[in-house]
Amino acid sequence: FKSKLPQLGTTIFSQMSQLATEQQAINLSQGFPDFAANAQLVAALADYSAQGLNQYAPMPGIAPLREQIAALIQRCYGRSVCPQQEVTVTSGATEALLVAISALVSVGDEVIIFDPAYDSYAPAIALNGGTAVHIALHAPDYRVNWQQVAAAITPRTKLIIVNSPHNPTGMVFSQADWLALQQLVLQHNLYCISDEVYEHMVFDDAPKLSANNFTALAQRSFIVSSFGKTFHVTGWKLGYCVAPAELSSEFRKIHQYVTFSSFTPAQYAIADMLAKQSAQVQGLADFYQQKRDSFAALLASSRFRLLHCQGTYFQLVDYSAISALDDVAFCRWLTIEHKVAAIPLSVFYQTPPHSRIIRFCFAKQHSTLQAAAEALCQL
Amino acid sequence: FKSKLPQLGTTIFSQMSQLATEQQAINLSQGFPDFAANAQLVAALADYSAQGLNQYAPMPGIAPLREQIAALIQRCYGRSVCPQQEVTVTSGATEALLVAISALVSVGDEVIIFDPAYDSYAPAIALNGGTAVHIALHAPDYRVNWQQVAAAITPRTKLIIVNSPHNPTGMVFSQADWLALQQLVLQHNLYCISDEVYEHMVFDDAPKLSANNFTALAQRSFIVSSFGKTFHVTGWKLGYCVAPAELSSEFRKIHQYVTFSSFTPAQYAIADMLAKQSAQVQGLADFYQQKRDSFAALLASSRFRLLHCQGTYFQLVDYSAISALDDVAFCRWLTIEHKVAAIPLSVFYQTPPHSRIIRFCFAKQHSTLQAAAEALCQL
Ligand SMILES: CSCCC(=O)C(=O)O
Ligand SMILES: CSCCC(=O)C(=O)O
Repeated sequence: FKSKLPQLGTTIFSQMSQLATEQQAINLSQGFPDFAANAQLVAALADYSAQGLNQYAPMPGIAPLREQIAALIQRCYGRSVCPQQEVTVTSGATEALLVAISALVSVGDEVIIFDPAYDSYAPAIALNGGTAVHIALHAPDYRVNWQQVAAAITPRTKLIIVNSPHNPTGMVFSQADWLALQQLVLQHNLYCISDEVYEHMVFDDAPKLSANNFTALAQRSFIVSSFGKTFHVTGWKLGYCVAPAELSSEFRKIHQYVTFSSFTPAQYAIADMLAKQSAQVQGLADFYQQKRDSFAALLASSRFRLLHCQGTYFQLVDYSAISALDDVAFCRWLTIEHKVAAIPLSVFYQTPPHSRIIRFCFAKQHSTLQAAAEALCQL
Repeated sequence: FKSKLPQLGTTIFSQMSQLATEQQAINLSQGFPDFAANAQLVAALADYSAQGLNQYAPMPGIAPLREQIAALIQRCYGRSVCPQQEVTVTSGATEALLVAISALVSVGDEVIIFDPAYDSYAPAIALNGGTAVHIALHAPDYRVNWQQVAAAITPRTKLIIVNSPHNPTGMVFSQADWLALQQLVLQHNLYCISDEVYEHMVFDDAPKLSANNFTALAQRSFIVSSFGKTFHVTGWKLGYCVAPAELSSEFRKIHQYVTFSSFTPAQYAIADMLAKQSAQVQGLADFYQQKRDSFAALLASSRFRLLHCQGTYFQLVDYSAISALDDVAFCRWLTIEHKVAAIPLSVFYQTPPHSRIIRFCFAKQHSTLQAAAEALCQL
C-alpha cells in the first residue's frame, strides 16, 4: 500500500495524551479543560435530545444557531453577517479548516503558513495538491515580519492561513498585523483563512480583533471558530465558518460531502447558551487570564522561564536551565519521570529552531495546576 | 472565484427536505426516522454528558465503543477484527467515505461506482483528483453485471465502491455478487470501499452478508457503517470504518485532520446500547420489513407501481401511470401540489435512464405513512 502522506505520523496531541494516560501523568499537553461545562448547557443537550431532536440538522446548521453566531459577531466585532448565506456550522474547527482549504487549494497552489503551525494545516494543503510555504516565527514574541511574508508571495500563492490568538505561542495580532495582512491579501488577490478558535481568550491590553473587523479582508476570508474552546466542551466538536456568500456556497458544496451536518441536540443547546448566557463568552478572557496568572505564580519558583502569553489557554516555557534534551525527548521524560505531560514546539516547524521550549495547557482546575506546578518546581 | 466543483449543486437531500419544510409536506425524501430513538439511548447521552465526559474523545474513538463494534461484527458475520488497530469511529458514514476515498485515490486514479450512486462518492473522488467510472444499474432489479465491471477495469482502476443494501434501490448483493467482487478485487489488485450503512435492514430471504464475510475481500476493504441508521439517530452523526491495520493507519492519518474525533457522550451512549440492547440491532430487519409491507399495502390501491425492496428503508415506485413529468419535476410537483416529498432517481446517474421512478423513505410512524398514502392514492 502506497501512502499519500508517507511522512505523516499520528498527531502529537494524540501521542502525548495517550502517553499521559499510560503514565497516569497530569495532562497539560492536548488542549482541553478538565473542569465541568456550564450546567445549563449540559441540561439543554439532554432536553433537546429527549424532545426528539435527534435527526439530521440542516446541512449548513440549524437556523437559530446561525442567527446566534451572526449576533455574536455583531456584538464582538460590530460586523453584520448573513446567517442564511454566510455562516456554516461544522463538526469542529478542524472540519472547517479542512473544508476551507479544500475549497481554495488546487494542485500547484502555494499556501503561506506560519510556523509553529497547527498541525492540520499542512496535511490538508497536501491532500489538495498544494504546497505549504512555511514562514517561521521566533521566540520570545513570535511576531510576524510582514516584509518577509510579502517576499514569500509568488504568482502561485493562493492563500495565507493566520491564527490569532496563536496556538501554541499565545501571540495575538495587533491592529498593524491585521492591516498588513489585509493589504497583502488585497494587493495580490489572495484569500485568507483566519483560524480564530481562541478569539475570546485575549488578555491584558492586547486588542480583541478578528478578521471580522477588517471589511476588505473579511470579503476574501474564511473565518473559523469553535464552540468547544469557548464553552469548555472540546468533545462536542462544534465549530463554524463565516465567509462571504460566494465563498460560503463553495464551502458548503464540500462540507455537505465531508460530514453533511453536525450533532443536532448540541446545536440547539449552544444556540440557547449564546442567546441566554452571552456573559459567559464575555467573561472568558478574565477567566483564563486568572488561570494564566495563577499558573505563572505557581511556577515562579521553578527553573522554567515563562514566555509572555497574550491569548489562548497555552503557556510556553523555556526549559534550557533544566535540561539539554531536545523538546520531544524532554516532553517524554517529563511525562514518564515527573508525571506532567506537555507539548513540544519543534513538531510544529518545518525547520525546527534550536530553542528549548514546550507548551503547557492551563485550561485546568486550580488543583490540577497546583499539582503540576509542585512537580515542575522540583526540577 | 473559480470553483473546484463547478458542476456541483446542493445535495438533493437538502433541496427536497427544505422544499418539504417550506411546503409543509410530509417528508418521505431525505432518509431519516420520524419516531423517537430508544429512551435508554437518549438517557445515556444525558448521563454521560452530565458526568462530565464532554472533552475530546481519543482520535480513533473511545475504546469501549471500538470493542463493541468488534463484538457486533463477530456476532453478525463471525469475523474477528482488532478494535485497537482495525476500527475507527467517525463523524458519520459520510466522513468515513470521504476519508477512505481520500486515503486511496490520487490524481489520475479511476474508481468504479454503480449508478444510481449515493451522491457523495463522485465529489469525494473528484476532490482527490480521481475519475469516477460509472456503471449503470437498471430497473426493475438493479443487479450488477460483473462481466461489465470486469470490462471497465483499466490499469488506472484503483478502487470499486459498493453499497449493499443499496440506496436508493433496495437491491441487496447475493453471495454470488460478493464472490464476483472479491475475485475482481484480488485479480486486479484493487481496493474496495463497502458502504454498508443499511446492513441490518435486509428483508425476506435475502442473505445478510457483508464484506466482513469474505476474508480475502475484507483484507483490501474499508467497510463503512453508521449508528445513525441502526439506532434511529441520524443527527448524531456517528459511524465507523473497519479496515486492516495498514489501511486503518492510513485512514486515521487523514481522519485526524478531517474531524479528529466525534461527539464524546454519544460514543459512550452507543457503546452502552451495543452492550446491553443488542436485540435492537437484531430486530431491526423485522421492524423495517413490517414498515415496508404496511407502506406497500397502503399504496396497493394507488397508481404507483412498487419495485421490489430487498433492504434499506427506501421504496422505489414507478409513477409512469400518473405523470409524464421527469422525476425531478414530478418530485417538486408532488411536494408542492400533494404535500408529499420524495427523491428523484435520475440525479444519482451520470446518464439518467428514461424511467419514471422516485424514492420514498418508509422510516416513518405508521400515521405518517398513512397520511402520505392517502394523498398518494388520490393521484
Ligand atoms: C484536536 S486535538 C488538539 C487540541 C488543540 O487544539 C491543541 O492542543 O492545540
Ligand atoms: C446525509 S442526508 C442523506 C440521507 C440519506 O442517506 C438518504 O436520504 O439517502
